[in-house]
Amino acid sequence: MVSRAGRKTDAGFGKQSSRDALLQAVKNLMTRGGTIDVSLSDIAQESGLNSALIKYYFGTKQGMMIALVEDVVLADIAQLHHLLESDANPVEKLRSQIGAIVNVYFRNPYLNRLVNKLFEDPESAEILAERVSRPMAAVQRALIEQGVEQGYFRNVDPMLLYFMVLGACDHLFFGQRMLKVTFGLDIMDEQLRKSYANTILDLVMNGILLPKPAA
Amino acid sequence: MVSRAGRKTDAGFGKQSSRDALLQAVKNLMTRGGTIDVSLSDIAQESGLNSALIKYYFGTKQGMMIALVEDVVLADIAQLHHLLESDANPVEKLRSQIGAIVNVYFRNPYLNRLVNKLFEDPESAEILAERVSRPMAAVQRALIEQGVEQGYFRNVDPMLLYFMVLGACDHLFFGQRMLKVTFGLDIMDEQLRKSYANTILDLVMNGILLPKPAA
Repeated sequence: MVSRAGRKTDAGFGKQSSRDALLQAVKNLMTRGGTIDVSLSDIAQESGLNSALIKYYFGTKQGMMIALVEDVVLADIAQLHHLLESDANPVEKLRSQIGAIVNVYFRNPYLNRLVNKLFEDPESAEILAERVSRPMAAVQRALIEQGVEQGYFRNVDPMLLYFMVLGACDHLFFGQRMLKVTFGLDIMDEQLRKSYANTILDLVMNGILLPKPAA
Repeated sequence: MVSRAGRKTDAGFGKQSSRDALLQAVKNLMTRGGTIDVSLSDIAQESGLNSALIKYYFGTKQGMMIALVEDVVLADIAQLHHLLESDANPVEKLRSQIGAIVNVYFRNPYLNRLVNKLFEDPESAEILAERVSRPMAAVQRALIEQGVEQGYFRNVDPMLLYFMVLGACDHLFFGQRMLKVTFGLDIMDEQLRKSYANTILDLVMNGILLPKPAA
């Protein structure tokens, strides 16, 4: 099957795992290197696979990057639709959704940078907007609106909240040099990443809650 | 007078205004272009001044960029020290400080990107860290600690709060393409910038407040 982005999926034995190995190699390279510029030969070396397989599975490097974003984000998108239909408390539902976004970014700090790069190409932008960005933003908007209607949340602009959460997450990738120069921290380790994720989640959730939520 | 960064200041008639005109030209170019890559000839054209004046006033382009960051941020740094000595309510003091940071970024959306670029050079990094980044972070830390001690604030990590605020602000510069692709917004106009600044300030301040502040 070839998708609009030229992606090829293959259920043959051993082939799915080569596809996954290629995607994992890109994730490793971007996370370790703090850059989204990775070459085909870097990917081949990191995965131990021939770079011709990239063409086979993804058509182009661009197609591979789109597949990577979908791979990283889609599981959470599915969760999000599930949240909308749930009868749980709006506070818990929004906390789950923002927590899922924050966690995706913390496992994949290059994500926003990569998405932004892909947005430069109109065709890739439309694919990603349709499959990833708009669904995420739409679910968050619906969850916030539920909470506002039911008297739990302040009346914030969902678009601006979404924009702020992504900016705070993105800074994890971009702001490391600032941490080093300003605070003398050489790396942001796993523990600090977790603390930062929790700080974002707590501040945003406490920030959106009305002082006296409905019973 | 020549500073460590090779900056020259000059009290001669008309000269200060040429210096300011050069800095203003860079601000205009970066804000309009959404990029920190501006050439000497762009600066000359935008300011209507000879690019040799850049060497005269700032020594190098790097020196000019350091002077720009100081020019943009220093007035607020002064304010911040004033805040520490004030007897005002910790909530109002922190709101003023974060509000000042947010406003500087909203008037100068290229700021974080430029600072990060300058941080690549160890000498520039140390100058900016000493004059700008560490004082800002230290004042914010002291204000948060005051508020925690006096029972107004949750016990957040001041470094992570600072990091989150800068990330949210920085996204204004970096995230515009996301806004366009995801929400169909062509530009973030003045009104939307202001709404976003208020959203950040309100969410962070509401987020840090304890449910029942001390009387």
